Parts: sequence; C-alpha cells; structure tokens
Amino acid sequence: MAAPGSESSQALETNMDVDYVVSYRFDDKDKDASLAKFEELVRALSSVGLATEVRNGEDNSVLVFCRVASKDHLFGEVYRSRVKDWIHGIRASEPPRETRQALEADPLSESERLRIIYQLITNPEDEGGAGITPKEGDWKNVEAMFPLHDHKYNHEWIKKWSTQYLLKAEDLDEIRNRFGEKIAYYFAFTQSYFAFLVFPAAFGASCWLLLGHFSPIYAVVNALWCIIFTEWWKHQEYDLSIRWGVRGVSAIDSHRKDFRAEKEMQDPVTGETIKVFPMKKRFLRQLLQIPFAMLAILILGSLIVTCFGIEIFISEVYNGPLKQILVFLPTLILSTGQPVILGILNHFAERLTNYENYETHGSHESALVQKIFVLNFIVSYLPIMLTAFVYVPFGSVIVPYLDVFSLTVKPFAEHDKQFEAPSSWTINPSRLRNQVIYFTVTAQVVNLGMEVVVPYLKRRGLAKFKEIQTERKAKNGGTKPNIAANDPPEEAAFLERVRKEAELDHYDVQNDLREMVVQFGYLSLFSVVWPLTAVSFLCNNWVELRADALKICIEMQRPTPWRADTIGPWLDSLSFLTWFGSITTSALVYLFWNDGLGPDGTPADIKGWALLLSIFFSEHLFLAVRWAVQTVIKKTDSPGRQKERKQRYIVRSRYFQESLKQMERLPKMSEDDNTTIGYLSRENLEEAARQATLRANRMEDKFWARQKGWKETVAVGRTLIEQAVSAESKKDQ
Amino acid sequence: MAAPGSESSQALETNMDVDYVVSYRFDDKDKDASLAKFEELVRALSSVGLATEVRNGEDNSVLVFCRVASKDHLFGEVYRSRVKDWIHGIRASEPPRETRQALEADPLSESERLRIIYQLITNPEDEGGAGITPKEGDWKNVEAMFPLHDHKYNHEWIKKWSTQYLLKAEDLDEIRNRFGEKIAYYFAFTQSYFAFLVFPAAFGASCWLLLGHFSPIYAVVNALWCIIFTEWWKHQEYDLSIRWGVRGVSAIDSHRKDFRAEKEMQDPVTGETIKVFPMKKRFLRQLLQIPFAMLAILILGSLIVTCFGIEIFISEVYNGPLKQILVFLPTLILSTGQPVILGILNHFAERLTNYENYETHGSHESALVQKIFVLNFIVSYLPIMLTAFVYVPFGSVIVPYLDVFSLTVKPFAEHDKQFEAPSSWTINPSRLRNQVIYFTVTAQVVNLGMEVVVPYLKRRGLAKFKEIQTERKAKNGGTKPNIAANDPPEEAAFLERVRKEAELDHYDVQNDLREMVVQFGYLSLFSVVWPLTAVSFLCNNWVELRADALKICIEMQRPTPWRADTIGPWLDSLSFLTWFGSITTSALVYLFWNDGLGPDGTPADIKGWALLLSIFFSEHLFLAVRWAVQTVIKKTDSPGRQKERKQRYIVRSRYFQESLKQMERLPKMSEDDNTTIGYLSRENLEEAARQATLRANRMEDKFWARQKGWKETVAVGRTLIEQAVSAESKKDQ
Repeated sequence: MAAPGSESSQALETNMDVDYVVSYRFDDKDKDASLAKFEELVRALSSVGLATEVRNGEDNSVLVFCRVASKDHLFGEVYRSRVKDWIHGIRASEPPRETRQALEADPLSESERLRIIYQLITNPEDEGGAGITPKEGDWKNVEAMFPLHDHKYNHEWIKKWSTQYLLKAEDLDEIRNRFGEKIAYYFAFTQSYFAFLVFPAAFGASCWLLLGHFSPIYAVVNALWCIIFTEWWKHQEYDLSIRWGVRGVSAIDSHRKDFRAEKEMQDPVTGETIKVFPMKKRFLRQLLQIPFAMLAILILGSLIVTCFGIEIFISEVYNGPLKQILVFLPTLILSTGQPVILGILNHFAERLTNYENYETHGSHESALVQKIFVLNFIVSYLPIMLTAFVYVPFGSVIVPYLDVFSLTVKPFAEHDKQFEAPSSWTINPSRLRNQVIYFTVTAQVVNLGMEVVVPYLKRRGLAKFKEIQTERKAKNGGTKPNIAANDPPEEAAFLERVRKEAELDHYDVQNDLREMVVQFGYLSLFSVVWPLTAVSFLCNNWVELRADALKICIEMQRPTPWRADTIGPWLDSLSFLTWFGSITTSALVYLFWNDGLGPDGTPADIKGWALLLSIFFSEHLFLAVRWAVQTVIKKTDSPGRQKERKQRYIVRSRYFQESLKQMERLPKMSEDDNTTIGYLSRENLEEAARQATLRANRMEDKFWARQKGWKETVAVGRTLIEQAVSAESKKDQ
Repeated sequence: MAAPGSESSQALETNMDVDYVVSYRFDDKDKDASLAKFEELVRALSSVGLATEVRNGEDNSVLVFCRVASKDHLFGEVYRSRVKDWIHGIRASEPPRETRQALEADPLSESERLRIIYQLITNPEDEGGAGITPKEGDWKNVEAMFPLHDHKYNHEWIKKWSTQYLLKAEDLDEIRNRFGEKIAYYFAFTQSYFAFLVFPAAFGASCWLLLGHFSPIYAVVNALWCIIFTEWWKHQEYDLSIRWGVRGVSAIDSHRKDFRAEKEMQDPVTGETIKVFPMKKRFLRQLLQIPFAMLAILILGSLIVTCFGIEIFISEVYNGPLKQILVFLPTLILSTGQPVILGILNHFAERLTNYENYETHGSHESALVQKIFVLNFIVSYLPIMLTAFVYVPFGSVIVPYLDVFSLTVKPFAEHDKQFEAPSSWTINPSRLRNQVIYFTVTAQVVNLGMEVVVPYLKRRGLAKFKEIQTERKAKNGGTKPNIAANDPPEEAAFLERVRKEAELDHYDVQNDLREMVVQFGYLSLFSVVWPLTAVSFLCNNWVELRADALKICIEMQRPTPWRADTIGPWLDSLSFLTWFGSITTSALVYLFWNDGLGPDGTPADIKGWALLLSIFFSEHLFLAVRWAVQTVIKKTDSPGRQKERKQRYIVRSRYFQESLKQMERLPKMSEDDNTTIGYLSRENLEEAARQATLRANRMEDKFWARQKGWKETVAVGRTLIEQAVSAESKKDQ
C-alpha cells in the first residue's frame, strides 16, 4: 500500500472516468422490493448505453457508477441534441452531419457532455431516456445523482481567482464549460454588478465626505446608476446568451413529472394528443398569491413591528434596571422567530407553487422565485422603511402608546415611572443610519460567514456524530460491517471521497442570486441614507464571488450543468427595485435633507403635499430617464449581436443564392444598342399582342398597340411636349 | 360615337390593363432638358420590362401609362420578393420554385402585384429597379405615380359597407388585397375600436342616467376598458400580421434617397462597404425634440391661454355692449391662428425629422409621427386641462387679473366698470362639461364634414377656376390647344378620368390614424366629465369608417399598397394616453365629485396632498392592473398564433426528420433477452476495454473491469444489499 498522502492526492486526481454517480438507498424493511427496484435501475441505466459498477455507500445505500459505454453513442446523442437546438432556433446553422467534423468545428464541453448524459438518464423512455428521476415518484429510492468534482480543476480555479482582481470573459467561459450556463450566469451577473459598483463606491465616498447624508445629488446619480446597470445587464445577458449559444433555450424546457393534467385534448398545432391543465383554473389558483402575500406581510410585518416597538420602548422609554441586557430582547425574538416563520412561509410558497401546477420546470421555478422575492422583500426592507416612514415622522405620536410593551419588562422594573416616556423625548436621528449600516455591512458579513462557515461546521459535526455513533454501536456489540471493508485497496481513497461527496448538499443557484438582488435593493432603496453602502458591497462582493466558488467546490455536490439564457425572474425584481428606489429615495431626501429636520429645518414643516409631489416628480422623472436609457442601450451594438447577425446573414445569403440560382432576371435593355427597340423578347411579345389585337379588337389591346416599343413612346411624347411648349411660347409672344 | 352615358360607364369599367400612370410635368422654359429627361424616363421604365404608352396630361404634363410586358417577368419578380420574405423570416416556408405552382398555392393579390411593380420602378438600379423616385432628386419632374382606381370594385365596396353594421374579417382581407396592409391596418384598428366602443357607450349611458358626472365607478371601468382595448389591440395586431403574412415586415424597410451618409465603413456583418451616419450625432440631433416640444407648448400654449383668458373675461367679467358678438372673438382668433401656427410647426417637425437623417422610410415616418402626436396632444387636450386644472381650482384667484384682456373690448366698452369682475363672481360649473361636449361631439362632426365636404368643394372650385381660365385665355386670343383634342375617341372618356385622377391628392393613412388616436385620448382622459362621450364616438365612427372608404375612392389617388405589421408609433401614443388617463381621471374625480364642489362639498376643502395621493394611488393601481391584463392577454391563444406555430412545427419536424434520417439510435437492449448481457456492440466494447486493461493496467480501467456487464453489477449490488440488511436485522434482534 502506498503512503496515505500520495494515495489521497491520486484519489483527488482521477475520477475513474465516472460520468455520474447514482446513490441508491435501500429499505432494510422491504428487502425484496429494494432488490427488484435496484435491478430495474441498473437495467435502465444499461439500456441507454451506460456501463455500470456498484460499490457500497454510507447508511444503507449503494453507489452505482455510470459512464457512457460507447463514444459513438454519446456523439449520436450530442448530434441529436444539437439538431434539436438548431430546429428551435438556438443555433443559427445546421450542425454538420459527420460527427467527427461537428465535434471539431464545435468541441464538446464538459458541461454539454454531462448535461446530455443527465438527460439520457432522466428523460422519459419515449424520448429515448432511461426515465430515472431522482427522489420523484417511482424512483424515490434514488437519493441523488451527481457528477464527481474535478478536484484538480477546482484547486486551480480557486487559486486563480483568489489572486485575480477582476474576472475576465474567459473565466466566465470556463465556468460555463464546467458548470453550465445557469451557474455561469450567476457569476457573470455578480461580476458585472461588482464592476459596476466601483463607480457608486467612489462617488458615494466623495458624497459622504463632501455632501453628507441625504444629498439629492447623490440620490439622482445613484438612481441613474441603478437604471443603467439594470438596463445594461439586460443587454449583456442577451450578449452572453449568444456567446454561449443558448439564445432561446428557455423555450425547450423539460416537463415536470409532478404536473397533473386535467384533461386531454388535441394539440391544435401538432395534432398530437396532449395533456393540459386549463389556463383559467391556473389563473384562479395564481390569484391565491394575493392573500398569500398579504398573509406574509401580516405575519412577518407584525413580528417586525412588535420587535421594533419593544426595542424602541426599551431603548428609549424604559429606564429601569437591566436595560443594557433587555435591549437585546427584541433582537433575540426576531432572530429566532423570523427564520421559523420564514421557513413555514417558504414551505407554503412551495406548496402553493405546486398547487399552481406548472407544466415545465422553468415556469415552476420562476413562479416560486417570485414568491420568495416577496418574502425577502418584507424581511429585508420593512424594518428600514418602518424607521424612515413611521418612526421618524410619527415617532412623537406613537411613542406614548408603546407602554403596551411594558409587559415585556414588567418583571424587571421597579416602579411604573420607569415605563413613562421622558417628557423631553426626541426622535433618535442616528437610528435610521445605524440600521442601514447594520443591514449593509454587519448583515452582509454575517451572511457571508454563515454561507461558508456554517456548512463546514455542520459537515464536521455530522462526521463526528457518525463516528461517535459507530463507536457506541461497536461498544454495544452491534455488528454493522465497515462499509469500506470490501473496497479494493487502490480504490479505497477514491471511494471514500465519493462517499463524502454523496453526503453533500445540492447546490441551488437561486439562493445566491437572491442574495445579490436583495443587496442591490439596499443600494437602490436606502443608500441615500449612508452613501458608503456601495463601498461595503464592493468589498463584500469581491469575497462573495470567491466564497461562492469555494462553496461549490467544497460544500456542495458538483451541480448538474443546466442551460439558461437569463437570470430569470430576478431580472424583474431588479427592475422593480430600481423603480421602487425612485419612490423611497425621493421621500427620504425630502424628509431628511438638512440632517433629518425637513427642508425648512424643523420636522414639523414636513408637508404631505410636498412629499407626495417630490415622489410624483421623482417617479416620473425616473420613468422618462429609464425610457431614454433603454432606447440608447437598445441601439448599442455589441460583439454578441454582431456575431448573431453575421451568422444569420451567412445563412440567409446562402439560401438566397440557392433559391435564385435557377431564376435569372430578364436581360436588361442594352444601353449601346440604340437602333433596336428594347430587348427581343419584349418586342416579340408586343408583336404578338398587336396581332392579337387585330383579331380580338379589345379596347384595351387597341390602347396598348398605339405605340410600338419605347422609342415610339418617346417620339409621341416628344411631339406632345413640343406642341404644348410652342403653344405656350406663342401665347407668351 | 356611342351615347355619352354608356361611354363613361365603360370608361369606369376598364383600366386598359394599366398598372401605373406616371405623370411627367415638363418645364416649358427648358424644353431640351425636359425632353431628354422624358426620354430617360421612358427608357428606364422600359428597361425593367414595362410596356409604355404616352398621352397628353393637364397643365404642361404628359401621362405615361405602364404595364408589365411579360407575365413571366412579373412572376419572376414575385418569386424573388417571396424568397426575400422567406429569408427574412416573414414567411415560414420556402415558396415553391415552380412559379405556376407557387401562384396556385398562394395567389397573387392585386396589392402584392402593384407593390412589386412599384418597387420595380422605384428601387435603385443596383437592386434591379428603374430608380425612378417621384418628386425626389433627379426625378423632381415626375409629379406623381399612381395606379388607377378600380371603379367597379370601389362602387361595390361603398355599397356593401353602407348597408352593413359590422365589418367582418373578410372585409378587411378584401381591403388588404386591394390597398395593402398599411391601409388595412387602419381600417382594422378603427373597426376594433368601434366594436370595443359598444361597451363604454352602453355603460356610459347608464352611468350618465344613474350616477351622474364624475362617478368613480365610471372612471375605474373606463380606465379598465382603455387598458383592455390597448392591450387587446396589440395582441390583435400581431394576429393580423400573421393572417396577412407580414409578420416582421418592418425589418426589410426601404432606404431613403434623402439620407445623407457621413462616412463609409465596412459592415461588420456582411463585410460590404456601407454608408453610415453616426448614432451619437443623430442622438444629439434627436435631443432637439425637447426644445421643439417646449417651443410648441409655449407658442400653442400661449395662444390657447390667451384665447381662453379673453373668452372668460368677455363671457364672465365684461358686461358692456356687444357682449353677444364679442364672445366669439377668441374662437375666431383661435380658429384662424391655430391652423397657421400648427402648419408652421408641422413644417418645422418635418424639417427636424429630415435633419435627424434617418436611413429608412419607416424610421423617418415614425419619428415624424411622434412629433405630430406632441403637437396634436397640445392642441387637443390643453384647453380642457386648462379649464379643469387651472380655471376651476384657481378661477377666483385668476379672474381679477384678467382685466389685462380689457384691451380687446376697450373700443366697445362704455365705461371702466364694465371691466370689473362682479363681486359675486363664481366659477361656471358647466364650462368644463360644455367644453368636453364641444370636443367630443361638435368638433368630431365638423371634422368629419371637413374631411369629405371640403376636398369635394375644393375639387369643384378648382375645376370651375380652370374652366374660367381657359375661357378667358380663349377670349384673349390664346391658342392653348385642347389637351383632349388628339385623344382617340374610344379612349376619350378613359383619359378624361385618368386626367382627373392625376389631379387628386395623395392619401396619407397617418392622418386618419391620428384622428382616431386623438379621439381615443378624449375618452381616456376626459370622458369621466361626460360619460356619454363613447356614445358620440360610436355614432361618429360608424360614419367615419364609411366616409374614409369614400374618401379613398373619390377624393384621393389610388394609394400604392404598402405593407406594415403594426399601426406603428400610434401604438405607443395609445399606451401613453391610457396611462395619462389614469392621472387626469383620478384628479378630475377628486376635484369634481359631488358636482364640482370637492369631496366635502366646498371647493375650498380641496387638499393638495389628498389630490396627489389620489393620483398616486390611481396611477399605481393602473400600472398593476395593466400588468395583470398584459399577462392574461399574452397567454391568450388565437387563430393567427396557432397558424404560425403550426407552420413552424411543420417546417421543424420536416428538418428534424431529414437531419436524423441517416442517424439511427443504437439498438435498445432487448427486454425479453435476459440471458445475454446488454447488446452486442456494448459487450464487444467492454471486452475490448478489459483486454486493454490487462495491457495498460490503468487504475481507471481496472475500476471498470470489475463487473462485467449489467447483470454482474446487479449480482454484486444484491450481495452488498443483502449483507447490509442482514447485519441490520441481526442488530435489531
């Protein structure tokens, strides 16, 4: 046996040519059924041309390793997939029929290979797949299906990124080739956002130094930046979709197994019998989103409002003992209560989305994302809005009523006077700023830590827990065999690694996208409160990009590479946040300019109509500017667009020439030949027409027979003109 | 000679097979140049395969009649045009190469024929045309180029429509076949609008009876109707473009001769040298629209404001003599001044659009239309807005200052007291309603009359004037020959008719579209003032549709049939008016509900913040509802869309089968054959792989060599599972 060090490094270097690992968990209560299903699984995998090997897995599971048995088979599938793309308009030109030639012209990337094998395994049998759908329906015993991490590449990737300030287009292409377009889009978006942040960070820092908070200049520039970024990203997204050859890929979406059709009908287009769910019924179900959103606002809102009230009461009204400790009470309530409620609501959102019964994975996902955005919107922005638009303007009205929260501190208070608001009570002007700083700095850092550290601790803890459990079992005389006992020695390190990867979590790119979009929201909505926001985000996102790469490499199973041509509904969220920013920012500037004292120096001078007028004006200015920016950006050309047009042009001109090859234009009249009239064919035709006239004597034929050829027309015309002119000149004389 | 009656009816029946008439005006000062140009004209027409005949025209002009000399030539051009359409994605499938077959499958409509001949004459020579551009550049002597009216069809058309309540899709198809899609779109739009008006007419009438003016219920329903109509029309427009086979036709727009390129560059797409005008420069020129719009608002606005002020002064302040007559003074100023100013501004808009230097006719036209919309917006809606949002709320503040207008009546007044506002002066509450009624009833009727009657009178007057002139000349001994003197007798009536048609105006569909859009604006913006608005429009538009048909048939030259796939920038105008309606309507309802006395019964109680809050609320409600309506309508299927998808599906599945014909899938594993392992080819491959292992001894190959075929995998897996299960069960015992 070699030294452990070299062995493990070798285990990291080879993936044993494995394409996918299927983790099959058997039920020890129902052995026969498990065995039968296992046989069915291996048989199905084999039926689509995959070679299989089985090894022991953790906790009542076996790992089935698959790889494509024949290269020609794989190439055939690649060709089919590319033809399908071409027919759906994703590729501009037909792929060459000769496979080798096709693969030379457009080499097979790892992500394309893995995607095609994944589809081979999961597609329904009538579409030529094995029909194995992990965790769904009949295949609920198939716990996971994942490709293996390429540790060598991952290592280089992390190393390269951690020493590089900016990511280049080639870095993104590399991710696309490894992890597919969907994940590459997330990195491309975050990278663009990061690059765009440089300007507001620099501008924000100068404003912070020179203009202070709530500067209208900062507000206008920041809103303009948000518009340009959002619109530019739409443009860029399109460009990337062409660069990566995925334009329009969302149109060929895969069907959900969970879709429940209500009736069958004939497709008016293809004539096939299809299963449909009535649109009206789905629309009615979608309407449930409105009560769902209201419920979420109500529940989360009252939690937030309560904690907010308690906090103000304790920190600004209460003056009894233990104030220093009690002031953390609301934070405690919020940080325990909110995740629980959010978890329930998220679960509810998922069930609602299932109930809405979408046909494709894409539409299901985007419906879910919309709901999740609503929840995140409430949790992320409501606290700041409460401070800005309720606490500050109406604080002195509300604070006296806050003694309802005296219950929370009653056990600690010594006498009732401690619950009375001081008569000299004033609004705490730094509260808003502190809150914004909390959300844009502290929370971001905490979040980042949670993302990387918590899964690591969890993984470690779980491993420790298992170890202890095994030891205890061994003590108790349990005879559970060591699953690694039968491993061939040269595979041992490799199998250990695979078993660990099988235990890892599934990576969902939507979570990371959500985080970025929510962050963008703080910038658009509230950064006028604290212009350094963008600086904080700039630093955070440099780390975030690398931390996410690390997370994918270490904390997660290698994701199946999916294609996408957009970041999906998050794009709408971005537009919405930019828009909403125009409202909040104008209101904040009106309310707090001149250090929170209203435009005239005293908060009492805040006028409702002036506030509304500022909002009205700002919002419409925003809409006009956005329209202008959209128009300008839409007209901007880009390499991707040029490439697309070029491809189309080539295809077109080829078709055009092919179609018109046999079609020749009639010969033009020769310019030198002044003696003959027109070209021969025409003369013949006219002669024939004249002959016909003599026979038929139609009025129309007579009309056209008067002037024979264009020379006669000219001659007659000349006479007419000369007559007229001479008549005129005579008259003039 | 036959009786005159039958002759003229015969003249109406035949067009002598003429496709186009070119009216060439010669210059009697420069005979030689005129003659040379004339020869060039006839030669150019002949060079593209047109037969020509020349006859005398009115006023120093000759008429050149053209028709296609050879049917095969025409069919060749039709085929070229259709192939071009197919390549640009306008047609789903390639037209059959055999001409006869192509024309049988998709017969040539009159509009397609005329359009292709027009393009043959006007296209540049390097695109295979004759390069003759009427009234432009070198060809400024070519005064007009028009096809001849088909009087028989026109007669039937008018007759049919005047006895029919609703127009059917077939009627619109008929217009499309005769006059082209651009005009057909106007009729389709007006017809849809007319049909949609039935609901607000009925609902408005009920509201007028039951709820009175300024009812919020009416306002909400009306806004909803406006949204649904606008969005539905977008949907319908798309559908029509598929029905008429013109989807995407705006992409192949024709180039303007007046376009002035600034530099030459290589097209990055086609590699050809193209002439371009820098986008940035054009954008800077487009920015001139802002001062232009402000200038227009200033000039037209001050005219309207002045007249408005004078009118109020005379009607409500002045109480001297001649008041009954003087009250018409502002109307007089407005109705003479406004057309003059509008004419100047229109001219200015045209020059500005020329200066913006667009490459294609389409972009030029839409830029012009946008400017014209701004002018019309001011003229049409500003007077009512002044009354509603200036006169009523601020009337009592402003009226005392109106004595600046006393100048206008000074000559008639007896003493200064007559200029003083009565102390009991109150706002005239019916002024707003009267004004809306004026614009939605009186002005519409007057407009309709002007459109049909004025051109008729003008035509009559002109004919009379010419007759008198000729008579006078004859008296003065002028020898101007009778232009009809040399006409062959059987052609005389026909030529007389053509000479008349040559004198007619050129039809511009944009004017009629503008009229409809402006009308829609009244409904969206102000109909809450007088809910019967839609009733008036419903009656008006029934007549309007027929009057426009009549106008095209009688008052105008037969228009060249153009293609279009939209009503163009008017669509944006519709959206804008709907949006703006949500603002004006909410403001009107807030201000005037409860008979113009504000929500609380007294106008003094109108609160700025409440007004702005109503507007804010209403506008955002509008945006949300519009989004919902858009979503629902976008998902609605329609015959046109189904047809399109069907065509695409057929093309796709044909390609798919063609491409995959030679590509056969690997044979699936036979389900019955349980004794052999997998399929043969795979077995062979694995055997080969195992052989290779023995030689190379690669770790990876060893890994895959452990289990030979899927049956062995199953067997090994079975052992693993059974071991695990038995261990568990032992432990449990």
